[in-house]
Amino acid sequence: MTPNVKTKVAVIGAGRIGKMHIEHLTLHIPEADLIVVSDVNVEAARSVATQFNVPTVVADYKEVLANPELEAVIICSATDTHAQISGEAAIAGKHVFCEKPIDFDLHRIDRTLRVIEKAGVKFQVGFNRRFDPSFRRVREIVASGKIGEPHILRITSRDPEPPPISYVKVSGGIFLDMTIHDFDMACYLIGSEVTEVYAAGGVMVDPQIGEAGDIDTAVITLRFANGAIGTIDNSRKAVYGYDQRVEVFGSEGMATAANPRVDTHTLSNGDGVHTSLLPFFFIERYREAYITELREFLACIQNDTPPLVTGNDGRIPVVIGLAALKSYQENRPVRLSEIEESAKRGT
Amino acid sequence: MTPNVKTKVAVIGAGRIGKMHIEHLTLHIPEADLIVVSDVNVEAARSVATQFNVPTVVADYKEVLANPELEAVIICSATDTHAQISGEAAIAGKHVFCEKPIDFDLHRIDRTLRVIEKAGVKFQVGFNRRFDPSFRRVREIVASGKIGEPHILRITSRDPEPPPISYVKVSGGIFLDMTIHDFDMACYLIGSEVTEVYAAGGVMVDPQIGEAGDIDTAVITLRFANGAIGTIDNSRKAVYGYDQRVEVFGSEGMATAANPRVDTHTLSNGDGVHTSLLPFFFIERYREAYITELREFLACIQNDTPPLVTGNDGRIPVVIGLAALKSYQENRPVRLSEIEESAKRGT
Amino acid sequence: MTPNVKTKVAVIGAGRIGKMHIEHLTLHIPEADLIVVSDVNVEAARSVATQFNVPTVVADYKEVLANPELEAVIICSATDTHAQISGEAAIAGKHVFCEKPIDFDLHRIDRTLRVIEKAGVKFQVGFNRRFDPSFRRVREIVASGKIGEPHILRITSRDPEPPPISYVKVSGGIFLDMTIHDFDMACYLIGSEVTEVYAAGGVMVDPQIGEAGDIDTAVITLRFANGAIGTIDNSRKAVYGYDQRVEVFGSEGMATAANPRVDTHTLSNGDGVHTSLLPFFFIERYREAYITELREFLACIQNDTPPLVTGNDGRIPVVIGLAALKSYQENRPVRLSEIEESAKRGT
Amino acid sequence: MTPNVKTKVAVIGAGRIGKMHIEHLTLHIPEADLIVVSDVNVEAARSVATQFNVPTVVADYKEVLANPELEAVIICSATDTHAQISGEAAIAGKHVFCEKPIDFDLHRIDRTLRVIEKAGVKFQVGFNRRFDPSFRRVREIVASGKIGEPHILRITSRDPEPPPISYVKVSGGIFLDMTIHDFDMACYLIGSEVTEVYAAGGVMVDPQIGEAGDIDTAVITLRFANGAIGTIDNSRKAVYGYDQRVEVFGSEGMATAANPRVDTHTLSNGDGVHTSLLPFFFIERYREAYITELREFLACIQNDTPPLVTGNDGRIPVVIGLAALKSYQENRPVRLSEIEESAKRGT
Repeated sequence: MTPNVKTKVAVIGAGRIGKMHIEHLTLHIPEADLIVVSDVNVEAARSVATQFNVPTVVADYKEVLANPELEAVIICSATDTHAQISGEAAIAGKHVFCEKPIDFDLHRIDRTLRVIEKAGVKFQVGFNRRFDPSFRRVREIVASGKIGEPHILRITSRDPEPPPISYVKVSGGIFLDMTIHDFDMACYLIGSEVTEVYAAGGVMVDPQIGEAGDIDTAVITLRFANGAIGTIDNSRKAVYGYDQRVEVFGSEGMATAANPRVDTHTLSNGDGVHTSLLPFFFIERYREAYITELREFLACIQNDTPPLVTGNDGRIPVVIGLAALKSYQENRPVRLSEIEESAKRGT
Repeated sequence: MTPNVKTKVAVIGAGRIGKMHIEHLTLHIPEADLIVVSDVNVEAARSVATQFNVPTVVADYKEVLANPELEAVIICSATDTHAQISGEAAIAGKHVFCEKPIDFDLHRIDRTLRVIEKAGVKFQVGFNRRFDPSFRRVREIVASGKIGEPHILRITSRDPEPPPISYVKVSGGIFLDMTIHDFDMACYLIGSEVTEVYAAGGVMVDPQIGEAGDIDTAVITLRFANGAIGTIDNSRKAVYGYDQRVEVFGSEGMATAANPRVDTHTLSNGDGVHTSLLPFFFIERYREAYITELREFLACIQNDTPPLVTGNDGRIPVVIGLAALKSYQENRPVRLSEIEESAKRGT
Repeated sequence: MTPNVKTKVAVIGAGRIGKMHIEHLTLHIPEADLIVVSDVNVEAARSVATQFNVPTVVADYKEVLANPELEAVIICSATDTHAQISGEAAIAGKHVFCEKPIDFDLHRIDRTLRVIEKAGVKFQVGFNRRFDPSFRRVREIVASGKIGEPHILRITSRDPEPPPISYVKVSGGIFLDMTIHDFDMACYLIGSEVTEVYAAGGVMVDPQIGEAGDIDTAVITLRFANGAIGTIDNSRKAVYGYDQRVEVFGSEGMATAANPRVDTHTLSNGDGVHTSLLPFFFIERYREAYITELREFLACIQNDTPPLVTGNDGRIPVVIGLAALKSYQENRPVRLSEIEESAKRGT
Repeated sequence: MTPNVKTKVAVIGAGRIGKMHIEHLTLHIPEADLIVVSDVNVEAARSVATQFNVPTVVADYKEVLANPELEAVIICSATDTHAQISGEAAIAGKHVFCEKPIDFDLHRIDRTLRVIEKAGVKFQVGFNRRFDPSFRRVREIVASGKIGEPHILRITSRDPEPPPISYVKVSGGIFLDMTIHDFDMACYLIGSEVTEVYAAGGVMVDPQIGEAGDIDTAVITLRFANGAIGTIDNSRKAVYGYDQRVEVFGSEGMATAANPRVDTHTLSNGDGVHTSLLPFFFIERYREAYITELREFLACIQNDTPPLVTGNDGRIPVVIGLAALKSYQENRPVRLSEIEESAKRGT
């Protein structure tokens, strides 16, 4: 392979996340050649493509998949199209990077994963936080045995503000839209399967979220196969910024990742010692992780290695999320096996 | 009242906690006049009394209560004697400071509280952490509304090492021996009643603890009447020291208390930046709080004001602990009302 | 002006700093169109240009300046060519961004600044740390009066390792090569002129540095016109990373900027609490600042506004550095006026 | 020796520092038996003695020294009486703890030290900061070689507010009253002799301090015999509390001690992340150190070991302070040998 060979990629979906990926692909990822962007809203796609010098814009993703030069797709469209487009892309022989979640429905996920496996293309799900340097470091510490056997996991994950109510209504609910990242992080850090979930929650930030059938605050307990126990807390509104912390406590010590700050300044005055806010939201906070996850996806393609985040890694947090939802609704712990069996039975 | 009037007090029980209170009363609390120490093991009592110049030592607490000059007792004897001695002391007209817990049995607690109320003496339970400057500050911030409505509470409470197995067997179990402090701290910080508990846990530190019928690791979810949700995690063994942290997250911000360190040094070298361990265990960590709680108890006596930690404050964490135990055993959430009703029915 | 108009720029000098600017211009600065790179070592230039897709490579900077399309040059060549090339570029009508220092000789600097002023082009010196978000924030705090009148300034600036001895010999010495950044930062933060300098130093890291006629460790005291006093400490070798800290103490408080870390992890174990190293060296540490300084330079060109770092800002730190050198050699405080007068007299 | 043998001590001088030592001796130091307090203002002495149950109060220290039972004296009287009383106490066979400084005049210090040496009693000077756990830890790190050879020392020492002008006038000036602690800390941490001093300073906090012939802000550079260089900065007014930090940078790393905080709370809100103030002033900040220095003094008496802070340790910071004063007045570096020679010549 000659140096500077770029992988020809497309971005399907030019909304907030898609636009971010487009910027990263064109400005920060020299091994990518972004040749086309598509969005049902073709004007939105055109605007972004012009800003970042992407040569081609189409409205229909099928045109994208029909391009013989294209090697991989980055799927950032509406969640309910993820499974469909992933499957078609795989059949078309394109490697697939799919934003989370693959789908809310286990059957659809499993069908899609079977199609992808049969097609033999690379498939990576967008659980970007695994690629954050601090969380990665915590995982390395745990995996190396430096803290012994993991006993207790704590994750805090709070957004600075809730999404629009229109989004909430189609988001799948907090567990499948927001906590799903933390379910993946929990599996990633502990390195053992989640067996059971207990979810408590409420509507404390905005009553409209409750009226839309969702909650905005949650505390979830996880049990792992290796005996470890985890607790995740979520809120849709933290006034001080995007709060993302993890902690793994074990027999030989504890590893944590704290929040970065906008800058490192401190102001000391008669009221106390004051430091900077946290980065505002996910694009700012996880910029490096978003870039790294795409770079590693492209490296998997170029080197023919398996992605760090596999299809099954994309599936499991949905199972956990469905268990959390049931647990919340019925106020009891729910085993993942119960969700799997319901799925088999077709319920 | 003339200046330098001291309150005449006695310490009943000269074990680890009792010895600590004796040292504090004689060396750091000038408003106390410690006139007698008692312990069934009179040699132990004598050794401590000599070290700290306490004039009188007896084996039988009834002799202590019979002293007409005595104004108050500090009860640090075995837990199964707390209720009995508290009641007798109240009847004898002595003000009572009683180490936690009052008892493991709600009936005995309620009987004792009725006796004390009838006697009209001051009664304070030894939930010392309320008197820690950092936790007190967090409570002030919450109570002042600076973080708005409290939504999420997080408490981490990990000991550096488990107690002897002989103690574990009579401790009442982790929820009534260890988490009981955290249950009180949760009520203190949130300022609302706990309504329901879900407890997950396991034996991860020492199998002998399991053989003794207890667990050493726990994650407890609490629901509060005001809608807030809390999570407590406990371990009997943290190799880096006594880990005691609280966090209250609300609609307008977040208040936390971090661990102090043995000292403020930092060593930067080729491996990274290294700081000090945490204080080793509770006597070191809460020294100021242990002194303050006794000083405020004595101030309540001198000024005829109500104690910060009342009898009911001493009762509620036991109810929560019993709910937690049931929840752990049956792996389901348990409402405090269920425990109260069982108690009424005599079960 | 139509959107997406890029400023056509060239980079002169493809060594370590030049290569960094080339990467930033091509990957992170969409408003730049890097059309040519030059270096006397044309093979080095070619390698970098290929890596970053720069269309043209030449050996002789005069060819660069002769290009009528070119609008601005980024000068990263050897220090002893800065003044010459800056002057010629200005005469050729090109805006100039010049890496520090402009020169070691005040006469040459002043001649160059006169040429540039007459030519009327934009001129910005590469004191990138002014563009670091944390240092910028400290300056804003000081300028806004939040800490009152500045009284004391402290700057720590330590490299992870010394430069090669071959570089040391032509570097101009520590004060003009390394401390020069801190002299500029001192003026930037305090907002008042330096009037006097006292420099103490020694050879503690590597005797070869002493043999090359330089020192590797220094502590410099600065007096400002407004009465403030500053202290700078430098070392050529900090094993824990690139240590860059500032602190301004005033009548109403103190503003500081601390070191960032490679990541936010913490490992707690039986030895203590361990955190991450500092970023290794300047490209990693100041990446954002290096990008911002070029972007703001280009914005000055596009908007016809004055650069944040002017020619005089580029000159003053050299005067301070010459005063520091004299002070070190003669072990006495040296006023800047003494250096200015020597320069006038031609000594 | 039987257990619980207490050393019979007296406190001479019941002002602010004396009162603090009296409280510590009576409440926190069981191995001391404080039998008498003296002060020329006998009412002040009586008030303190009553508060802390000291049996005897006199106006004249000679009565104290005449008591055959007395074993040691703690001298906290006005500075200009320290040398006199120390000498007389030694001649009377009493061990001497003397608050800093012994005197402002080198001759008087040397005469007193000769008397004390001849008398063969223990003599310790009140440089309490050596006994602070964090500074002690930094010294241990340096002494153990963990940071290699020390190269650079930084000390920041800022008071929350200046002393009364009446005190300033008799204090000996900032270098002998305030920086003297930092001079001792510098020698303690580096473990090498100071050879030369350069002091810059000014009046920035309160013009009345200037009118009283003193300054309130200073930056002092120290050179050590081992080649290390230090910088100390002082201010008489830091609005955020008593700022006391040290840092030793060496060939293999860096050891620092940061400020403790009043408590460990953090408040995060829309403005940022806010933490606690520093302890207000020296009694609060160095409480443990003040107690430890007296306990170790008494241990030296009981065990017949040499004090950690010797007479020479008490002398050297005065020499450095005199050099600093001369340096400030003449704006030039001053070698300690110059001060020593002036003293020998009688100037």
